[in-house]
Amino acid sequence: MRWIPRKVEFFGLLEQQAEIGLKGARMLQDCLQEFGSPEAVYLASKQIHDIEHTGDDLAHKVVDLLNKTFITPLDREDIHQLTIKLDDVLDFVDLVAKRLVTYRIEKPTAQCIEISRIIVRQSEEILEAVKLLRDLKRGDRLLQQCARINQLENDADQVMRDALTDLFKDHDRDPIDVIKWKDIYEHLEEGTDKAEDVANILETVLVKYS
Amino acid sequence: MRWIPRKVEFFGLLEQQAEIGLKGARMLQDCLQEFGSPEAVYLASKQIHDIEHTGDDLAHKVVDLLNKTFITPLDREDIHQLTIKLDDVLDFVDLVAKRLVTYRIEKPTAQCIEISRIIVRQSEEILEAVKLLRDLKRGDRLLQQCARINQLENDADQVMRDALTDLFKDHDRDPIDVIKWKDIYEHLEEGTDKAEDVANILETVLVKYS
Amino acid sequence: MRWIPRKVEFFGLLEQQAEIGLKGARMLQDCLQEFGSPEAVYLASKQIHDIEHTGDDLAHKVVDLLNKTFITPLDREDIHQLTIKLDDVLDFVDLVAKRLVTYRIEKPTAQCIEISRIIVRQSEEILEAVKLLRDLKRGDRLLQQCARINQLENDADQVMRDALTDLFKDHDRDPIDVIKWKDIYEHLEEGTDKAEDVANILETVLVKYS
Repeated sequence: MRWIPRKVEFFGLLEQQAEIGLKGARMLQDCLQEFGSPEAVYLASKQIHDIEHTGDDLAHKVVDLLNKTFITPLDREDIHQLTIKLDDVLDFVDLVAKRLVTYRIEKPTAQCIEISRIIVRQSEEILEAVKLLRDLKRGDRLLQQCARINQLENDADQVMRDALTDLFKDHDRDPIDVIKWKDIYEHLEEGTDKAEDVANILETVLVKYS
Repeated sequence: MRWIPRKVEFFGLLEQQAEIGLKGARMLQDCLQEFGSPEAVYLASKQIHDIEHTGDDLAHKVVDLLNKTFITPLDREDIHQLTIKLDDVLDFVDLVAKRLVTYRIEKPTAQCIEISRIIVRQSEEILEAVKLLRDLKRGDRLLQQCARINQLENDADQVMRDALTDLFKDHDRDPIDVIKWKDIYEHLEEGTDKAEDVANILETVLVKYS
Repeated sequence: MRWIPRKVEFFGLLEQQAEIGLKGARMLQDCLQEFGSPEAVYLASKQIHDIEHTGDDLAHKVVDLLNKTFITPLDREDIHQLTIKLDDVLDFVDLVAKRLVTYRIEKPTAQCIEISRIIVRQSEEILEAVKLLRDLKRGDRLLQQCARINQLENDADQVMRDALTDLFKDHDRDPIDVIKWKDIYEHLEEGTDKAEDVANILETVLVKYS
């Protein structure tokens, strides 16, 4: 047990988590945008799963560090929650990649590519926001980042609505197909929701420390 | 930064949030009960969305006030959580109204009207409960309110179960229709779950302050 | 209001909650494994519901005790959260049992039996973990338990994926059947997620007290 604040280590790990989350989100977007053969999609999903695994390891490092540290730079519970929710975003990215394989998706829809793009943008904003944790005096900028992450979640809701309208418009559509796509859209949207959860925790931190 | 407790402002804003939530819930119930033409339903969904927007603004005001206030009448985190969950109930009310449009629903089922009524009743109990926050010495009454909100969530579960039994009973039912209604029921039920979350937070507050 | 720590009572109630949770999980597994007539399944679902009711009563006792106790053996919020999440696992077990009746399921799949087994194993680990709360100096063992609960959740994800692959493989499958099974799998998986939430809270407790 070291008694000095390990501020640098904590913020470093959270930033790594945010970076790996962004990496995973970009890989999903690339996979959807340049949709290849079933083998290519399978390979991409395996690579995203490896990224997710790296993310898990980082999350465990944060928990271990929490257990070894007496004075933490932010409330323990907030660091713990932040780690869990950062991990959740990546989990949903990983889940969607796996569903593409499970459901033998042949061609992604425009809206599913669009939502994956929104998750990339949210992940970029999250990385910026997590970097701002080192200096909470710049609370205004952090609040702005959070507002952007939330706005992107609203955008995703709108795309999701358009996607569902398209999906249910065509009366001859195969119901099994509808089930698959509805599921993929919902999991993508849950990813954007978890990003919003990250923003909410960052706001909570600001509320306490500013 | 003002250093005096802004008790009045906080409780006022939370009550406004509870009031706007009740308003939105009533509009959804009205929309379902007096189900009109597609245009009428579209218009109602737009009006509910405006209400949801007003709710968002109130939630942001609470967060802003938290950031400007040194001594809060309840724990910062509890106020923050309460604001988020109050907003969540209204979000699901808004989501269901939008789904009615997206899915081109032609006629609401008895059970969907029934669950919307339950959300109205929960919202009424929530408003009463939030008003009781001003005087935590009346903890017994607040606990009663929470018990009622939870009981209503149980009632909604039962209605949901009856609704699903009906939905899957008819073997000739169009699967697309089943997908739509299952989705609407689930979102209505999530609304009642979020109301239960509000009750859980209020219980937490009582646990701390009584 | 008694001013002495009621450590024994709190830990006793939480253990009872964990025990009743395990009992419910085992009843669901038995029901699925020795799947009987519709009447037998209905009866089993009623018995599981009674168990769930007993679980609710225990959860209320914890909240009541929190309200009557000045000094709690762990943070009030953590005890409250633990009680809620322990109850959530049992709620999903109960929900799945009810869905078997609602959907008139005739024969359970191998994977649904498998996930119910995983919930039993998680519940066993949870009971062990809750027992360890009495002596937080054995933090290493508690962390091990949490790691096992999380690993079991990962296992359930894999089984769920195999189940979905099977479900969507057969092109002639009745879409209504697909909807039913997808729903049951998802609720089983949510049960394992709630067990993971329990592990996360236990980790949080360790993070604070060790």
